Amino acid sequence: MADPTVPVAIIMGSQSDWETMRHAAETLDALGVAFDARIVSAHRTPERLYDFARGAKAAGFKVVIAGAGGAAHLPGMTAALTPLPVFGVPVESKTLKGQDSLLSIVQMPAGIPVGTLAIGKAGAVNAALLAAAVLALGDAALAERLDAWRLRQTDTVAEKPADHV
Amino acid sequence: MADPTVPVAIIMGSQSDWETMRHAAETLDALGVAFDARIVSAHRTPERLYDFARGAKAAGFKVVIAGAGGAAHLPGMTAALTPLPVFGVPVESKTLKGQDSLLSIVQMPAGIPVGTLAIGKAGAVNAALLAAAVLALGDAALAERLDAWRLRQTDTVAEKPADHV
Amino acid sequence: MADPTVPVAIIMGSQSDWETMRHAAETLDALGVAFDARIVSAHRTPERLYDFARGAKAAGFKVVIAGAGGAAHLPGMTAALTPLPVFGVPVESKTLKGQDSLLSIVQMPAGIPVGTLAIGKAGAVNAALLAAAVLALGDAALAERLDAWRLRQTDTVAEKPADHV
Amino acid sequence: MADPTVPVAIIMGSQSDWETMRHAAETLDALGVAFDARIVSAHRTPERLYDFARGAKAAGFKVVIAGAGGAAHLPGMTAALTPLPVFGVPVESKTLKGQDSLLSIVQMPAGIPVGTLAIGKAGAVNAALLAAAVLALGDAALAERLDAWRLRQTDTVAEKPADHV
Amino acid sequence: MADPTVPVAIIMGSQSDWETMRHAAETLDALGVAFDARIVSAHRTPERLYDFARGAKAAGFKVVIAGAGGAAHLPGMTAALTPLPVFGVPVESKTLKGQDSLLSIVQMPAGIPVGTLAIGKAGAVNAALLAAAVLALGDAALAERLDAWRLRQTDTVAEKPADHV
Amino acid sequence: MADPTVPVAIIMGSQSDWETMRHAAETLDALGVAFDARIVSAHRTPERLYDFARGAKAAGFKVVIAGAGGAAHLPGMTAALTPLPVFGVPVESKTLKGQDSLLSIVQMPAGIPVGTLAIGKAGAVNAALLAAAVLALGDAALAERLDAWRLRQTDTVAEKPADHV
Amino acid sequence: MADPTVPVAIIMGSQSDWETMRHAAETLDALGVAFDARIVSAHRTPERLYDFARGAKAAGFKVVIAGAGGAAHLPGMTAALTPLPVFGVPVESKTLKGQDSLLSIVQMPAGIPVGTLAIGKAGAVNAALLAAAVLALGDAALAERLDAWRLRQTDTVAEKPADHV
Amino acid sequence: MADPTVPVAIIMGSQSDWETMRHAAETLDALGVAFDARIVSAHRTPERLYDFARGAKAAGFKVVIAGAGGAAHLPGMTAALTPLPVFGVPVESKTLKGQDSLLSIVQMPAGIPVGTLAIGKAGAVNAALLAAAVLALGDAALAERLDAWRLRQTDTVAEKPADHV
Repeated sequence: MADPTVPVAIIMGSQSDWETMRHAAETLDALGVAFDARIVSAHRTPERLYDFARGAKAAGFKVVIAGAGGAAHLPGMTAALTPLPVFGVPVESKTLKGQDSLLSIVQMPAGIPVGTLAIGKAGAVNAALLAAAVLALGDAALAERLDAWRLRQTDTVAEKPADHV
Repeated sequence: MADPTVPVAIIMGSQSDWETMRHAAETLDALGVAFDARIVSAHRTPERLYDFARGAKAAGFKVVIAGAGGAAHLPGMTAALTPLPVFGVPVESKTLKGQDSLLSIVQMPAGIPVGTLAIGKAGAVNAALLAAAVLALGDAALAERLDAWRLRQTDTVAEKPADHV
Repeated sequence: MADPTVPVAIIMGSQSDWETMRHAAETLDALGVAFDARIVSAHRTPERLYDFARGAKAAGFKVVIAGAGGAAHLPGMTAALTPLPVFGVPVESKTLKGQDSLLSIVQMPAGIPVGTLAIGKAGAVNAALLAAAVLALGDAALAERLDAWRLRQTDTVAEKPADHV
Repeated sequence: MADPTVPVAIIMGSQSDWETMRHAAETLDALGVAFDARIVSAHRTPERLYDFARGAKAAGFKVVIAGAGGAAHLPGMTAALTPLPVFGVPVESKTLKGQDSLLSIVQMPAGIPVGTLAIGKAGAVNAALLAAAVLALGDAALAERLDAWRLRQTDTVAEKPADHV
Repeated sequence: MADPTVPVAIIMGSQSDWETMRHAAETLDALGVAFDARIVSAHRTPERLYDFARGAKAAGFKVVIAGAGGAAHLPGMTAALTPLPVFGVPVESKTLKGQDSLLSIVQMPAGIPVGTLAIGKAGAVNAALLAAAVLALGDAALAERLDAWRLRQTDTVAEKPADHV
Repeated sequence: MADPTVPVAIIMGSQSDWETMRHAAETLDALGVAFDARIVSAHRTPERLYDFARGAKAAGFKVVIAGAGGAAHLPGMTAALTPLPVFGVPVESKTLKGQDSLLSIVQMPAGIPVGTLAIGKAGAVNAALLAAAVLALGDAALAERLDAWRLRQTDTVAEKPADHV
Repeated sequence: MADPTVPVAIIMGSQSDWETMRHAAETLDALGVAFDARIVSAHRTPERLYDFARGAKAAGFKVVIAGAGGAAHLPGMTAALTPLPVFGVPVESKTLKGQDSLLSIVQMPAGIPVGTLAIGKAGAVNAALLAAAVLALGDAALAERLDAWRLRQTDTVAEKPADHV
Repeated sequence: MADPTVPVAIIMGSQSDWETMRHAAETLDALGVAFDARIVSAHRTPERLYDFARGAKAAGFKVVIAGAGGAAHLPGMTAALTPLPVFGVPVESKTLKGQDSLLSIVQMPAGIPVGTLAIGKAGAVNAALLAAAVLALGDAALAERLDAWRLRQTDTVAEKPADHV
């Protein structure tokens, strides 16, 4: 199903979630972490979800990043079907602005964890960073790249507001 | 799996949900509607969920009532796996009082509906009544029993507050 | 009042709700389910509501879909006046984004159920699908059309995000 | 139906609401305003609601106080059926603490007003005071009693916390 | 201060609230009810508030409509300073969409009522209608105009959605 | 009205608020800051509020701590009537748990600030600490006592959970 | 680090917060209060935060105004590291409209206060006014300027809505 | 500071958080994962926080679990100061039931991730399970223990509600 050397799977509930989840992809690219991005709808393609999640470990993935909006069941159901760490990204929903997505993902019952990030783009970036931090525990080169990324981030924070004299 | 003459399945995410869902069972009993009650945890027993939901129609069920709390994925995942009508009962959660349960159940994306009832006991009673109303479309005797139940309900509303002179 | 061969009534509180509820109508059309769409304002035309709801069953309807926003009383009052199954669609309201509509529809007391769908367009589509699922219990041809509709929905979910290489 | 000299009707959705609404009754008693208290369930006794509300003005009532909880439709439906001023009291609900009751009552669409008070006991007391203020516009003796009531209220506010030296 | 034959005062916390409160003014105009509209800021002109509210009854007003947004103190403070009925309109606030305005107005403690209407334009229209209903208790001609207004409102509700065949 | 050497006024809307506000008093006592505690109800004693707030600076107060619950207008109205810094404590309300108190206090419009603390007891303690920090800007001895208080607080944080081996 | 005659530090979590916080700067300018504005990110530059906050008093600052959005930790962490009064401004966040910012800033535990202002621009203006009110306790000339500012504010409130005849 | 063979640090903001966080400790015990539990208050012991977080990786920790309530800054500040993966547990707060804790932890800006679990005990259990899943990526024996734990969990879900015949 997947290349055993691709450690991260990014899955999302629909094409429209890609607008958010692409920020996870771009962040992994920047960190030199290979990933596979695919659409897996818990509701419209439940069999695909089942097949993906049950096979994710055997396929060589180490971490799953799952983004979904509204009654967002994809991260939690994936976590129920794989022993791999799953990180969830609540995609901003139209009417409730991701409050439904957030609660649907984070309020998992004891026994099946989903490490949940912020609503929207920030959450997608951070899911990638968290996945990288996990992988870096066993990959010293990645750990160095992640440290460098964080240092650059710190360095780019200006001292003063840009248009303030 | 189930008796083909049992039209309603009541499923719930855990033993503790029975305190709420028993009100659905009692209401179906009062209306003379046979049902089967079982525990199906979307998160702890995902295989059982898949087996149940994919087989529900063939097992003879007509309507599924699903109760769950917190990040409540049971009703929506069941609806993704069966063409039968699914009615969802948000069980009151400890910290967020069922607001998480409600949003996780009702905010389904276009394509997979869950007819959602009120949080807690009232929702459980009403899921049973709604299931009965659906079944009564093809069962005149049940329609009469339901009408009688509603009439009795109307008749028991007192004119005046009990201890008011 | 209505053609006895029209099984679904779509009612809504105002002309502006049609922008949402037309998605229910279009979905029923796609499934080959006849319906009647009309405006029934619980607040501005309470007599019309009364007449419609008390006569809905005799008029031949099997299921009522009711959409309303804000302090949305139309679905619940209809359910109080007819034994037919009523499905409610919370229309997105201007300031509170449908949170008021949702709570006004879903939090019905024990005794009078409204099967509530998601806020807005998704809810309207799903109310139609749920009505079809109910009608399909007694209409094998519709059951097949509904199965086909669901299969097509599954098939149209792409494997990969569209602009992702 | 009612004594033409009784200016205030207190209606409530169920017996359990009386625990809240009795505070409206006691406040009217303290102000010497006659009232009639009765149970009118929008959902379980919709015919009684229609009969009461359509006949309220002819029965001699001047103001209606309506209390209800959850998906609280009683105040708004009453206001739709009578030209009299209607004041609504959101009764505290079990799970959502009256947030559903409040939004179901206050968020009425343009055209049918309900003057809404606070959730729970404070709202019941205040509905009575507001009804009295309305009646006092045409009843100088009541205006004096209301002024006296307000003065006493002001006088009973201590200068210092009771157990503070 | 005011013409004794002007029964309604419309006050608001700032010029920007007029965009909302003008709908109260227009509705009173349509009903032939005279009013006086002025800006009274609880926070920026507390002395003006004090003078207005203490003098409102003597100035001949019968009802006060007060609109404000955010931490909206104008309706409640006015109600604390006058025995006249006060109706509050929560103006939609920029970030919290009027949820702060609503709670600041409606959650008054027992003793000082504010009859609160919906957030925004609908609330402004309804405050005018409620004021008219109160005044109509002592003004038969106004009662007739209000009845006519309501009948016209009912008559303008179309039977069918406009662009639906 | 007050002793000019008493720098802090603690005011609260009712006797029941003292249960919360006494924690402000006790904290000021612990820091050796004199204060005056009194009940000033914005709604039931608006004249007292005006008199207190307009005279607070002349009476020698430097900082006002104001606690109130529900539609909490006391802190904001005080801030409108005095140039002194006002710190607001949202008292926990019965049904909405202080969410109404918080929004009513913190969401002040531009022009009249209230420095708002946390809901309940923590907010009362912190209002006292913030008042002390303000006074310490001009009182080196108090600054030392405040530093010592903070050091003790740091020192009392154990390294390990008490019953954990 | 800073000029000892600059009494106010305005810090913010990112460049984008300046759009909000510039209103604090402009208000301090209008009142003739010197300030220093800088970017200090609790998350991206934690060392800078540490250095700034621990040195703020020695650098001559009297009051710190801190603005941040989302999981806003800057105001609270600053307050943990300096004995100076800290005023927090919740910057409006994209999805949750500053509700997360507000709770992250205001709900500080007992022991470390942050005087919190309204979400967004109003809060920024008010943080400046509150800082000025604190400084005015020891600066009679500033107290006069602040009084004048408040008087002008009162004077600019029109009596009537601008386009109302 | 810590034994290099202890892979998990559990930190919490106060002694009272231990009631929640002990469930993380017990779960790690059950899985045979060594941990160190300590109190680190972001607000009352900010130096301890800095020392701990900056030294966590060198001390041999692989994963940090951080629990805190209210304006919960501990997880996010820790994540700002260490490259290790940080999992946050929102402790239930008294008035807002952990909604403030949740938003303060999960809504981190892009750049610094905190993998957030559910509010309260379920979140503490799940933080431990997620930490174990991360460690299991490099520890096959732990992976087997985790699989066994999950299997036992599945096996203990009964088929039927306990007292249902």
